[in-house]
Amino acid sequence: MRILVIGSVAAGTSAAAKARRNTEKAEIVIYDKDRDISYSACGLPYYIGSTIPSRDALTPRDEKWFKERYQISIHTRHEVLSIDPAKKTIKAVNLETKQPIIDHYDRLIIATGAIPKTPPIPGKNKKNVFQLRNVENADAIREYILEHQAKSAVVIGSGFIGLELLENLMSRGLKVTIIEKEDQLMPTMDGDIAKYLEHYLLSQNIDIVFNETVQEIQGNDTTLDIVTSSGKSIKADLAIFAVGVRPNVTLAQQVGIQLGETGAIRVNEKMQTNIEHIYAVGDCTEAYSILTKKPMYHPLGSTANKMGRIAGDQITGGDLTFRGILGTGIFKVLDQAIAKTGLSEREALNLGYDIETLVNIKPNHPAYYPNSSQLVIKAIADRNSRKLLGAQIIGQDGVDKRIDVLVTAMTFGAKVDDLFHLDLAYAPPFATTKDPILYTGMVLENAMVKGRKLITAQQLNQKIINKEPVIIIDARVEKQYDSDHIEGAINIPLKNIRQKAHDIDRDKPIITYCNKGVTGNAAQNILLNFGFKDVYNLSGGFKNYRTLY
Amino acid sequence: MRILVIGSVAAGTSAAAKARRNTEKAEIVIYDKDRDISYSACGLPYYIGSTIPSRDALTPRDEKWFKERYQISIHTRHEVLSIDPAKKTIKAVNLETKQPIIDHYDRLIIATGAIPKTPPIPGKNKKNVFQLRNVENADAIREYILEHQAKSAVVIGSGFIGLELLENLMSRGLKVTIIEKEDQLMPTMDGDIAKYLEHYLLSQNIDIVFNETVQEIQGNDTTLDIVTSSGKSIKADLAIFAVGVRPNVTLAQQVGIQLGETGAIRVNEKMQTNIEHIYAVGDCTEAYSILTKKPMYHPLGSTANKMGRIAGDQITGGDLTFRGILGTGIFKVLDQAIAKTGLSEREALNLGYDIETLVNIKPNHPAYYPNSSQLVIKAIADRNSRKLLGAQIIGQDGVDKRIDVLVTAMTFGAKVDDLFHLDLAYAPPFATTKDPILYTGMVLENAMVKGRKLITAQQLNQKIINKEPVIIIDARVEKQYDSDHIEGAINIPLKNIRQKAHDIDRDKPIITYCNKGVTGNAAQNILLNFGFKDVYNLSGGFKNYRTLY
Repeated sequence: MRILVIGSVAAGTSAAAKARRNTEKAEIVIYDKDRDISYSACGLPYYIGSTIPSRDALTPRDEKWFKERYQISIHTRHEVLSIDPAKKTIKAVNLETKQPIIDHYDRLIIATGAIPKTPPIPGKNKKNVFQLRNVENADAIREYILEHQAKSAVVIGSGFIGLELLENLMSRGLKVTIIEKEDQLMPTMDGDIAKYLEHYLLSQNIDIVFNETVQEIQGNDTTLDIVTSSGKSIKADLAIFAVGVRPNVTLAQQVGIQLGETGAIRVNEKMQTNIEHIYAVGDCTEAYSILTKKPMYHPLGSTANKMGRIAGDQITGGDLTFRGILGTGIFKVLDQAIAKTGLSEREALNLGYDIETLVNIKPNHPAYYPNSSQLVIKAIADRNSRKLLGAQIIGQDGVDKRIDVLVTAMTFGAKVDDLFHLDLAYAPPFATTKDPILYTGMVLENAMVKGRKLITAQQLNQKIINKEPVIIIDARVEKQYDSDHIEGAINIPLKNIRQKAHDIDRDKPIITYCNKGVTGNAAQNILLNFGFKDVYNLSGGFKNYRTLY
Repeated sequence: MRILVIGSVAAGTSAAAKARRNTEKAEIVIYDKDRDISYSACGLPYYIGSTIPSRDALTPRDEKWFKERYQISIHTRHEVLSIDPAKKTIKAVNLETKQPIIDHYDRLIIATGAIPKTPPIPGKNKKNVFQLRNVENADAIREYILEHQAKSAVVIGSGFIGLELLENLMSRGLKVTIIEKEDQLMPTMDGDIAKYLEHYLLSQNIDIVFNETVQEIQGNDTTLDIVTSSGKSIKADLAIFAVGVRPNVTLAQQVGIQLGETGAIRVNEKMQTNIEHIYAVGDCTEAYSILTKKPMYHPLGSTANKMGRIAGDQITGGDLTFRGILGTGIFKVLDQAIAKTGLSEREALNLGYDIETLVNIKPNHPAYYPNSSQLVIKAIADRNSRKLLGAQIIGQDGVDKRIDVLVTAMTFGAKVDDLFHLDLAYAPPFATTKDPILYTGMVLENAMVKGRKLITAQQLNQKIINKEPVIIIDARVEKQYDSDHIEGAINIPLKNIRQKAHDIDRDKPIITYCNKGVTGNAAQNILLNFGFKDVYNLSGGFKNYRTLY
């Protein structure tokens, strides 16, 4: 059997290596039009920032390594131009010698990856306007910064890559401006979580321009003049587009391989395309959501590796199948980590779910133990099934742990009621006695099953704007209320609420709040236990409200 | 309804607070013979080490707080002497005034906690021989160290508390010797994982005395002379017993409350004892294993809180039930974290499971990203059900994350095949593209289902001792083999194994190995694919083998 693979970064090499692990009875050949193989694309921003000091650290494996270990032949700088499924051949060209090649396959794996989107604007081809797809792009950015002693940069786009670039350009001493066409950072996340990051970045003197696109890039090799849709002009030594990627499906489309609704190659659970003997894996390939079973395009190295391993196994007689993804993502920017899995609030609402939304603000470990820091966990659950639908977390430490626990729970179809019972590891350096994950489940369960209803900051704000007849009770101590409070709120410190309860109008909806939610919930409990019917606690408390309004 | 609670640390206050959250229609009273309430017992070692600087940080809540917030009355320094279930009363005494009290209950919650074991040896009552049960004990240790400018200590016992004490005594500048009666540290964990910690502690100049008990403590208030079972004499300024705890069940026993086989109070899933209207929660109470359904005694603040909340809910009409524990534990000693969940290898074997054992050594995040460090993950799975039975992890960073992911997976009955598919959060600062958790599942699945059999270091060592006819292949490069290798191993570097395969005896069992397992597995794959039948890869590779032998 002869296995050909097109693409040698994550998915292609995973597929080839897995095939070889399963059998010695196959010829395995990989073609790639680039020079570099088997590197971590997710490491590229850190290579630009010199956090990863050397090119070798980023690209530890070469053709020789694959040959010696796996008897896999990798031809770099070879572009595959076309596929002939009838003859089971591919036509390629050696980009160095221009020599054409025809090669035969029994099984073909397409791992052509993704390509950065670049809007068609004047000036985008200037020498100091970059995108970041491969190691050579990263080399070019590094070299430009060094040669021109660049002092400033504009990053266009504020997704995960854009914000990782921000950190790494800053670590090289550049002043960075971010241009984002939406009204929030990280448009795949909800606006409230994005707001936490926005406040943080502003505190770090980052310039952020919202609601603007780039219309034109003027200037020259040393100083650019980036003109935005509103006519702003931003000067910078270089600019990098980080406005997302699209699947590289040109080759697949030419031969009639079906794309899915996301525009990426549609495959079945065995990673097979609609054309016999042709598989697709990695960033050119469509995945699907474990939660909704709907197609998803969420290109990432971890998923690419999974897909590659599954295809390699299938081709060589194995039975591994793809089980879908949650769309988990995480990134670090300066000392904050931001993670998401499953659906955002917006996505869940768009899909028609009846949801409960919690903003849970908790320390990552007890305040009495050094370096305790705050986690903001936003969790979305389905009121009908009580299953978790998604989570977003921002914080300094322990974000990756909590998102991975939620990923694992959600993979097994966890209901919110399951979280409290988890026997998670507890010791003061690592967690609170009740981990934030347990609280997340407890509060959602109380809201959905036990009548301890939640109201989000956005919902409360809308009620205030609409001048709805609600009673807002600030349950904090007087000093906190006097320092700042929600418009129209009355102050009944928790310790007084039992005596004051009879003065409160029972016919109006009541909203309780404190700083982060716990004391507000205590006040809510007392009122409900006193027979009040319509009492909501403000999710995330005043702290969350003030972050947004 | 009148609810009485005996004990005001974790479980008792949790029960009382949950009861109040559910209803205003109850009188809730807590009795405790100690002075301090609602503190983190797990924080005590850190208070001794001044990592937690003040007593107030450790005991943030007082009687007034519980009164104002929850209308809960707490009587400290009140010892409950007896219970009369027929009359539903308790008899207590105010330890300050000696005044006796009779109080009535509708529901009684026993949360009497645990007490440290202290062997009955001469000298154990000396002023500078301590145990660590409550804040006052910690105060006494702190004061003794300060007043006597103590320079050295002996910690008797090397469980989690003993090793946390070690760290904290060191942070106060004391030279510490550990005395452990078993032949390994942390006797609840497997010896191989304990060995990693042992090597580390020895590298930090800690003295460890194994296989010895303390026979007598001689000396005086300033210098102790600790005499061990072999007649060794160890001089130190103070000694602390940390040889485990036992449930404090004196009161329960007096009234005929049944104990379980672990010696702790037996309860049902509602936390009810065998006597009507009497509940038990926390460190005096027996739990049970999610995995084996058998009784377990595993006292810990996180479980105590769960039990308390469940009892409080049940008493006030709620339906929360206890779902068992995995026996998860974690602790930090200096810069190492050690965690365990589920069964150890020894425990699984004793229970009669047919197990697969993996030692998986992986970086917590990519080597190219700064501060990458090593995780050693030992995982045990059931060959029949393919379910995970337990895990133990040691490493510098990311231990808590991996154990919590495994806890969550095991809670949902995960099979080893499920781990590879988890869509865990990936970015270079947080994880490798394939997280160590994924590898753990992959290797175990390959071993159990795909014929990629594993052999443990202990099993290989036994074969070497027994002079069994096995071929041991060191698949590393020649230089590594020459520097050190397993006795009797031949060196066939991976890149040569395809050519050399025909020279290898097909009739003998073959064991392949490399440094950590990956290249050994590659060699194993090649030989199996060449038709060899009986090929094992050494779990954890040479690195793990040399840690043990």
